[in-house]
Amino acid sequence: MAPPELSALGVVEAAAEIRRGAVSPVSLVEACLERIRALDGGVQAWVHVDDKGALAAARERAEEAKRSTVRGPVHGIPVAVKDIFHVAGLPTTAGARPFAHSRPGEDATSVARLRAAGAIILGKTHTTQFAYRDPAPTRNPWNLAHTPGGSSAGSAAAVAARMAPLALGSQTVGSVLRPAAYCGVVGFKPTHGLVSTAGVIPLAWSLDHVGVFTRGVADAALVFSVLARRNVVAEPGGPPRLALAPDLLRRASPEIAAHVQATADAFARAGATIAEVKLPASFGGIHAAGQTVLEAEAATYHEPRFAKHADDYGPEIRKLVEKGLTISASAYVGANRARLAFSEEVMELLAAHDALLSPTAPAPAPEGLASTGDASLCAPWSFAGVPAVSLPSGLGASGLPLAIQLVQAAGAEARLLSVAAWCERQLGFSRSPGH
Amino acid sequence: MAPPELSALGVVEAAAEIRRGAVSPVSLVEACLERIRALDGGVQAWVHVDDKGALAAARERAEEAKRSTVRGPVHGIPVAVKDIFHVAGLPTTAGARPFAHSRPGEDATSVARLRAAGAIILGKTHTTQFAYRDPAPTRNPWNLAHTPGGSSAGSAAAVAARMAPLALGSQTVGSVLRPAAYCGVVGFKPTHGLVSTAGVIPLAWSLDHVGVFTRGVADAALVFSVLARRNVVAEPGGPPRLALAPDLLRRASPEIAAHVQATADAFARAGATIAEVKLPASFGGIHAAGQTVLEAEAATYHEPRFAKHADDYGPEIRKLVEKGLTISASAYVGANRARLAFSEEVMELLAAHDALLSPTAPAPAPEGLASTGDASLCAPWSFAGVPAVSLPSGLGASGLPLAIQLVQAAGAEARLLSVAAWCERQLGFSRSPGH
Repeated sequence: MAPPELSALGVVEAAAEIRRGAVSPVSLVEACLERIRALDGGVQAWVHVDDKGALAAARERAEEAKRSTVRGPVHGIPVAVKDIFHVAGLPTTAGARPFAHSRPGEDATSVARLRAAGAIILGKTHTTQFAYRDPAPTRNPWNLAHTPGGSSAGSAAAVAARMAPLALGSQTVGSVLRPAAYCGVVGFKPTHGLVSTAGVIPLAWSLDHVGVFTRGVADAALVFSVLARRNVVAEPGGPPRLALAPDLLRRASPEIAAHVQATADAFARAGATIAEVKLPASFGGIHAAGQTVLEAEAATYHEPRFAKHADDYGPEIRKLVEKGLTISASAYVGANRARLAFSEEVMELLAAHDALLSPTAPAPAPEGLASTGDASLCAPWSFAGVPAVSLPSGLGASGLPLAIQLVQAAGAEARLLSVAAWCERQLGFSRSPGH
Repeated sequence: MAPPELSALGVVEAAAEIRRGAVSPVSLVEACLERIRALDGGVQAWVHVDDKGALAAARERAEEAKRSTVRGPVHGIPVAVKDIFHVAGLPTTAGARPFAHSRPGEDATSVARLRAAGAIILGKTHTTQFAYRDPAPTRNPWNLAHTPGGSSAGSAAAVAARMAPLALGSQTVGSVLRPAAYCGVVGFKPTHGLVSTAGVIPLAWSLDHVGVFTRGVADAALVFSVLARRNVVAEPGGPPRLALAPDLLRRASPEIAAHVQATADAFARAGATIAEVKLPASFGGIHAAGQTVLEAEAATYHEPRFAKHADDYGPEIRKLVEKGLTISASAYVGANRARLAFSEEVMELLAAHDALLSPTAPAPAPEGLASTGDASLCAPWSFAGVPAVSLPSGLGASGLPLAIQLVQAAGAEARLLSVAAWCERQLGFSRSPGH
């Protein structure tokens, strides 16, 4: 059995250990497989674990590392892939019934980029059906009676339970940041369009983002650099100038509102500036506008399959498609323009601060698996297409993780992640679920 | 009366003469006003000529020029503005009945940029109703019995008749390049989004482009530099590598197809390379896809006004809006995706050559004013959002101008205009309508 501490390594750390020959990719994969064997009966993060493929790849990466020919920045890093991303040779189920299953011959672009940079595909993680609201079987590793959130349920849970140091997810409304918040890990989605969604089953093209789950901000920055072919390093800068919107705090439970306010106060004591800001008037219509865009685009994608297999759709995605099919082009165009107007208006406010600080979710992970929780505090930033990161920031009264969300203007990933690294250092959150 | 040759000066020439004090902006404006008085009874290019405002501005620009404090690259240049662009203090009619008229307090962004760079607003030119197909009263200066094309009818005619060296127009399908071709002037539309459409009455947001009419390529490049805040100089480079698509020639009349082929042959004798290319399969659906996007977006914009004033709409725009109101969101989203797929597929082909050479229109300006002509050869490049330029290339059997169209990939304006300058030099077209 692999030494237990291997599964606790983050991406940056593990990649450095592999490069200097102190850790073998084979031991790292074995440590992950060991955690999965021990815990996944309860957590149910995985649809399919590719032990053989992962171990074979790990042996190749180990040989290459021995010859000092590492492929890239994530050489030897095991990765969990949400099961709406195509991975060559593995089935894609999208959490749906067999009519929607496929066995793609090619990787999604994001998977291919990670693989080319040395990553090892460990397997596919559970998603809500077609990445909408019909729950996955996955449970929250902090408390199996609670949801891990959705739609990237398995990816968030796998990273939280230390079954993998890195997972790919996708966010259309709140499907990366909210499960990251519920599971006490870092969730990051960059600017819309910066990371290709090719080879990912769409929910709504205008809103779909590829995102990542890691246990630290530096890890997310490294992986983003690989995915977007950039060079972003999340060095904490000086104390940031943060914006705080009372409009957003009011949408959270008293516990969360108080927690975020206390966190802001602590940041201020450490030197940060906190400015109260008012969101633009267009914020008022953003949830309805985004939902219309989502409904119409989801209906467009599903229409041909839905005509034949409506009965095989879960109730939530079914309602979404049925609603979307009734929307007129002019309602859609109007909604999309309202969304873009909010994006344009809020951009100036975002760019004027180092980050907007808000709760990621209005409450910690709800009990039960029937609902994947409330995405309304993530939604505006998905609809605006701007980068956002969720950081674990404490444990709530129920013993479940709390989280803060940081948001920046489009394209300002480096600035956002540098602020996030500063905040992460202040928060000093290092707990993990007690397994 | 101003010396008659002043009205023949192009933008670059006139601006240089003004800067060195050889020509006064007042004389230039007077020369334009003289042409308008002499010819506009027949041509009917102008909705409103702002003699007083233009002369007052000209006197200011003249004083500034004397003090050598020119405002920018188009200091003292008179400009004709299509009557869907807002000009502060002048009414915007959009070629429509009074329900749609407005008297804006602010310039459209493009107008403001020209004005800030020293241009003088001469007045507003006739447009088809709401920039769609219901004809303007304007006639072709080469033969008053023929259409000047549309929708930027007055702008094209004004530049052709030497009533202004420069005009602003807009293109959603073929509304800059086609009237430029019919009227024997240069018409240029840059990449979608590069020149702001703020303050321009929309026809279809995803497809609307601001474009320019001039009598030379260098003029178009200079004006584009001002409009897009770039620095593009159209110096002719070496003989270009041109692509020629038989698919496009087949869509033209025998006269035009033979003319474009002969022009290509002449370019080849001058050193150009001509490569026959095949358009991607997605070209097959581009006209239908673009028309659906146009219908749906036009309907979205007009819906509130149309509900009250349907009877005041011309038959063509009325049909467009009525059709648009029946389109479903999923049909629109599908059409828009087909359009973007063509754009993506054709981009590689465009970037692999210095320009794609094709006819601008399938035939010279048709007789009569009932139709504004056939935009089908301009449409694909509007729908793909890529830059395109039309150059006058000869006179046809009917004595009306012939034209070629050059197209490049998005963002490659400098490359396109350099090729256009080379072609312009080979063509040596210097005729103007015989008034």
